[in-house]
Parts: sequence; C-alpha cells; structure tokens
Amino acid sequence: MKVAVLKFGGTSVADPEKIQRAAERAIEMRRQGYRVAVVVSAPGEMTDELIGLAKRVAPEPDERELAHLMSTGEIVGTSLFAMACRAQGALAVSLSGPQAGFRCEGSPTVSAITSIRPRRVLAEMAAGRIVAVAGFQALAPNGDTATLGRGGSDLSAVALAAVLKAERCDIYTDVKGVYTADPRVVPDARKLARISYEEMLELSGAGAQVMLARSIEVAQRFRVRLHVRSAFQPVAGTWIEELPEAAMEKAHVSSLAHDASEVRLTVVGVPDRPGVAALVIAALAESGVPVDMIVQSSPTTRGVNDISFMCPRSGLRAAAKALEAAAKRLGARKVDVQEDVVKITAVGTGFRRSPKVAAVMFDALAKQRINIEMITTSDLKICTVVSKEHADIALRALHKAFGLGRR
Amino acid sequence: MKVAVLKFGGTSVADPEKIQRAAERAIEMRRQGYRVAVVVSAPGEMTDELIGLAKRVAPEPDERELAHLMSTGEIVGTSLFAMACRAQGALAVSLSGPQAGFRCEGSPTVSAITSIRPRRVLAEMAAGRIVAVAGFQALAPNGDTATLGRGGSDLSAVALAAVLKAERCDIYTDVKGVYTADPRVVPDARKLARISYEEMLELSGAGAQVMLARSIEVAQRFRVRLHVRSAFQPVAGTWIEELPEAAMEKAHVSSLAHDASEVRLTVVGVPDRPGVAALVIAALAESGVPVDMIVQSSPTTRGVNDISFMCPRSGLRAAAKALEAAAKRLGARKVDVQEDVVKITAVGTGFRRSPKVAAVMFDALAKQRINIEMITTSDLKICTVVSKEHADIALRALHKAFGLGRR
Repeated sequence: MKVAVLKFGGTSVADPEKIQRAAERAIEMRRQGYRVAVVVSAPGEMTDELIGLAKRVAPEPDERELAHLMSTGEIVGTSLFAMACRAQGALAVSLSGPQAGFRCEGSPTVSAITSIRPRRVLAEMAAGRIVAVAGFQALAPNGDTATLGRGGSDLSAVALAAVLKAERCDIYTDVKGVYTADPRVVPDARKLARISYEEMLELSGAGAQVMLARSIEVAQRFRVRLHVRSAFQPVAGTWIEELPEAAMEKAHVSSLAHDASEVRLTVVGVPDRPGVAALVIAALAESGVPVDMIVQSSPTTRGVNDISFMCPRSGLRAAAKALEAAAKRLGARKVDVQEDVVKITAVGTGFRRSPKVAAVMFDALAKQRINIEMITTSDLKICTVVSKEHADIALRALHKAFGLGRR
Repeated sequence: MKVAVLKFGGTSVADPEKIQRAAERAIEMRRQGYRVAVVVSAPGEMTDELIGLAKRVAPEPDERELAHLMSTGEIVGTSLFAMACRAQGALAVSLSGPQAGFRCEGSPTVSAITSIRPRRVLAEMAAGRIVAVAGFQALAPNGDTATLGRGGSDLSAVALAAVLKAERCDIYTDVKGVYTADPRVVPDARKLARISYEEMLELSGAGAQVMLARSIEVAQRFRVRLHVRSAFQPVAGTWIEELPEAAMEKAHVSSLAHDASEVRLTVVGVPDRPGVAALVIAALAESGVPVDMIVQSSPTTRGVNDISFMCPRSGLRAAAKALEAAAKRLGARKVDVQEDVVKITAVGTGFRRSPKVAAVMFDALAKQRINIEMITTSDLKICTVVSKEHADIALRALHKAFGLGRR
C-alpha cells in the first residue's frame, strides 16, 4: 500500500475550524488508498507565545528548557488533529516526535535529525490509523526532547517520507504553490505545475519563502516527491521533483524571486594587491555574518578596487564593524552601506550554455531605465540588485520579458 | 542529604511573576540544605483552555488524545519554572512525568500511579539541580502519556516524596493552611499548626477543598509529612502528619468543615420490613450516584420508616429517578428532595469515648434555634445537616462553642 506523508504548518491549523479542514484533507488522502502520516506544526502563533512567556520568566531562557517548552506546541497541534479526524469518523492517533522514533543530535533548539525508527508509525498505519506526528522535535541522546530549529516541521515531514519510502509528501501551507513570481507584486504570475529540486533550492536561497533549502536538500537526496499546496483550497499545487533530462536541456527561466531582507556593503578604494580580497572576506567571516554575491570591480583608477557584498539586514551592524576595521588596516578609503536595495533572481537551467537569458534580463531592465547595482550569475540563476524604489517595476518587466505569465 | 518535595498548583504559577516567586521558594529550600524536587502544575487556566479547544475540534474528544493534549500544560509549567530558577542563578532542570520515571495504569485520563523509577531525578538532584517534575502525568504501559485525573499533581508530589523518602512535602497553594473553619464564614477561624492524617481525611471527605482524600491516603500510607502552605506569603502553614499518641487520647474537635454541594433525598413511608432499606440502597447504587449519611428513622406510625441520604447535587436527577422507581415498587409514599441544605462536620478524635462533644454541638445549635435535619457520628466526626439559611450562623456558633477561635 502506498504511503503519503502530509504536513500542515501553523497557519493551516491556527484554529479549530482549520484543524477540522486539515483533517478532511488527510481523510480524503486515506480514501484515495494511501496509508497516511501527517506532520503537524504548533497551531498559529503558539510557539511565539510560548517564547514570549519564557522571556517574561527569564530574560535569556535556557536553551534546553526552551526546547522542552516549545515542543508542547506540536503536541497540542497533533492531539487536536487526531481528535478532529476521529470526530469525522476516521481512525487516528497522535505521536510526539520521540514516540514516532525521531532521534537527533546537536544543540537543544537547533538539532539535526540523525535517524528515524518508525516502528510505531508503521504499526499504527498498518492498523488503519491516520498517524499525526509532532513535527519540529526529536529525542536527544540524553533522553531530552530537542527541537529542530527553523523549518523543522518541513524537515520532519520530508525525513519521515524518506524513511517510509512515501510515494508523495504533500506540504499544505498558506500559499497555493510555487509561482513564477510573487503574485502580490506581479499580478499575472502563474503557478508552476512542477519544478526541479535544483531550481527550488536556488529559489529558496534567493528569498522565496515557500520552503527552506534545508528540507529541499533532504528531499533531493532521498528523492522525496514534494507537493506544495494550499491547505484551504482543494486544488493541485506545485510538485517539486526530479525532472526528466529533456526538460533540463533547454535553457529556460522557471521563476523569479525577490528578497528585500539583505543590504549591500561596499569597501571602497581597496588597494589592488593579491590577497586583499581574501583579507576582507576573512574579516567578514570572523564577524559570523553570512555573505552573498561577493563582487569585486576591475581596478579603475590608480590601482584600487571596490569590493561589494550582500548580507542580511540583521547582520548589518556586525558586518559593518568588521569591514571598518579591515578597511582601516588595508588603507581602503571607506565602507559604504546601501540599505534600500532588493535582490531579484531569475532561476532556471542552462544559463551557462545560453547567454541569451542574461541578455534578455539586462535589456528588460535597461528599457525601464533601471540601474543594476550588482550582478552575479551561475548555471541555475542570475542575481541582480536594484534599488528598492524600482524593484516592483523591475520584477514585472522581467516576468514579461521571460514570458512567464503566458502559457 | 535531606530531600524536600515541593508542589505548586496552577494558581501558584499562573503568570511569570508568580512563577518567579515560586522559584524563589524552591531556591530558599535549597539554601536550607535540602535536595529539592518540585512538582509543578499547568499554569492558571491552561488545562481548562486546552479542554475548551479540544471540545471545539471534537464534541466528544477521544480520551487518549485528551490526555496527550492536557499533559502539555504541566510541561509548560515545569519548563518555565526551571527557566525562572536558572534566571535567579540556581541550577535547575525540568522533566516530564515519563522522564521522571512515573508509570501508571488505567484509563488515559484517570490513571493510577503504579510505580516511580526515580533514577534520573536522583541523578539530577545529586548534580545539585532543582528538579522540576511535571505533575498529573505518567507513562502508560503502551508508551503513551496518561493523566492522573482530579488532584493528580498533589498525588504526583506525595508519591514522589514517598519514593525519595523525602523529609517533607510542601504543598504550596492559594490558602495559608488548614483552618478551624472557613475564614470567609468564621472571621476568627484559626490556622492549625498541625493535624493528623485521619482528621485531614475526614475534613477532605466533609468538603474541605485543601487536598483530595486520594493524596492524603497515600501520604498516610507512606508516612509522608505534608506541609500545606501559601505560595504567596513565606509563613508556616499546616503540617499534616502522624501525631503523637498523647494528643490523640484526649477527645477534641480540630476543625469544622461545611459543604453546600450535596442535597438531601428522603424516601417517605417505606414499609418497616427487613431488607427494605437494602433494596433502596441497591437502587441507588445502580444509579451510580455516590451517597453519604444514610439515616433510617425508627418506625413511628403504622410500621413505616423514612430513609434519608445525602448525594452530590450533580447526581440529583439520576438518584431521584432511581428512588422514585424503588419507592413505587416498595409501596413507599413519596420521594422528598431538599436542595437548600448544608452539611456541617466537626472533625476531631475520641468522639466515641466522649459523648460530650456531640452534646456541645447539639446544644450550641439549639441555642440558636437551628433545626438539625440529619445527624451521623463516628469516632472522628459528627455530621449535621442544617438548612442553608442557617448555615453561617451555625458554623460560627459551633466554632465558638468548641473554643476553636481561642488560643
């Protein structure tokens, strides 16, 4: 019998009515002949509320206790989910992460799944029950319950699907699927029927909120077919899966992502000596801030370079401090910070084989008189940085230029 | 090293400030040289809120899922408690009921503790940590978490104290201890410094809300010294313990309890034949309603009796229905229901040896022209039932007559 793993995020189980609707989806999947395991998140804002409570008790709550506290949210979600299934006449049972056999290692609130021993999940499914499994949590080697960090429930679902050799893993969420661009910005954005793991990874890295790279990587490694879909409308979403070679051969753009959460830092007037760029990057690495899109301009005047980076807004202060110090040591002129920027990324395949894609992109922006602040390219993506005021126009122009809205 | 088990009820950990204060109490106990384990309930109304949520998802929530759901409340309480201890500089760790070694059997929401394997509790205490244990929950034989029913957290604390051979078990609550009568009714009611298990059991059975009989029985069996005290004021409460023989010898009244939660039922005009009372009681037993104070009057006119009972208000309808049927079968005249009654119980010792106590009681009520509707006596208590309108006057008169307010 085929197995389907379903996953409902916090917004999909935010209140009793939504929980009942989520239960309907699981029962419908059961009716289609699947054995069904459902990974459930904490309802609505519950995790944030618990963290808020913790911070009122202790300004810096202990990590181990925080994990114990937060893990209750998913137990609440799964118990309510199983009750809702039973109220609709289906057999169902809820299991905590440890009960479902999830083992992990690492820090209490940012653990990594090491293994899943699905003995009880298999037994409950074999008995015809819908098994609601608490996501985001697992048993640590010392017998404690640890949590898996951001995107942990998605990871629980994908890992469970891998271990159960599930035919599919349906991620129910508050969006209808993966779009050619953010529909809030680009009105004729189109829902993709399918996308490859590689492209989805790039989209995720480029700021698409649908799923974190972490879970997509595991899905790719174990060939778990993901189906990202709406928890509220019973229509097909987007399949994330291995696509046939043929489709991969042709250079094409699948989707545009944009990300306003990063800022641009530039070290201006760095001496053009070997090893200088490495020193700047080492200074940044020491600050612990992740950087992206490292671009060094060609030397222009009197043998000096500019080196630019994108980094998360939250890391701006630390990164700027590290760069100021490095600039001083190297005799660079100054450090520039540009906060009002948006990164726009075209994700697809075959870009290296076909420079035409980049040409279309730059041409479309030029026609709108939009200045491109930074560019990087790879085989799977082309990133450009534009000023915030032009971002929406740029996104719509690119969407049109790549013909993403038409079918 | 001596061990102290502390227990904080829901009202004592209802908000972050109260949790911090509760943590202070545990740290103070640690400072006095005890190894400390703390049983913590779910904060405030959390359990009721979870049940409310469950009923919105499923009109009749599955018991097993309900136990899973409710058990999260105590995890939240203990995690926050341990965080609060750490924020005040003490070592602390929280454990779920199953982690603390609590095993149980029975129905998922009304389980009975079968054993405690305190290996981890002992290890954590030996490492100098205050161990916060989730009350009200234990591991069922099938690996599920079950809950212990009403008063379950008290029971967890008393059982843990027994297994750890604790020198004391401090029950922190929203009252300051056990009083000679309810201070809200009797202004000069006095807090008792100590009371015997036997008397406390009678008080509990007579309607005192301090602790359920269930936990007191276990404390008595394992000679756990209980200390009922305020969570909000750092003063001594009431010790519940084995009292020296000397004190037991003298007939005395310790405390008065009153209970307005019961109603009186009377089968009027039952034929005075052997076995008739037994038939009436059998009918009641079949209705499942617990009864109390069964009193049969001596035959008065034409060989007929009246048989009266007290039963919980909640069971009135079922009990009345059973009695109506029995009355018809036996040819009794009718069934009388008296709802506005209050049971007042004097608890103490040596009543059988000294009829003087009963005499003082009846005399005091007679002086107030209060009619006694029913009476039963045992060696440890004298119960009287009076009409509701006279209850407060009766309680104050008795408190004075027994000299309970003076010291």
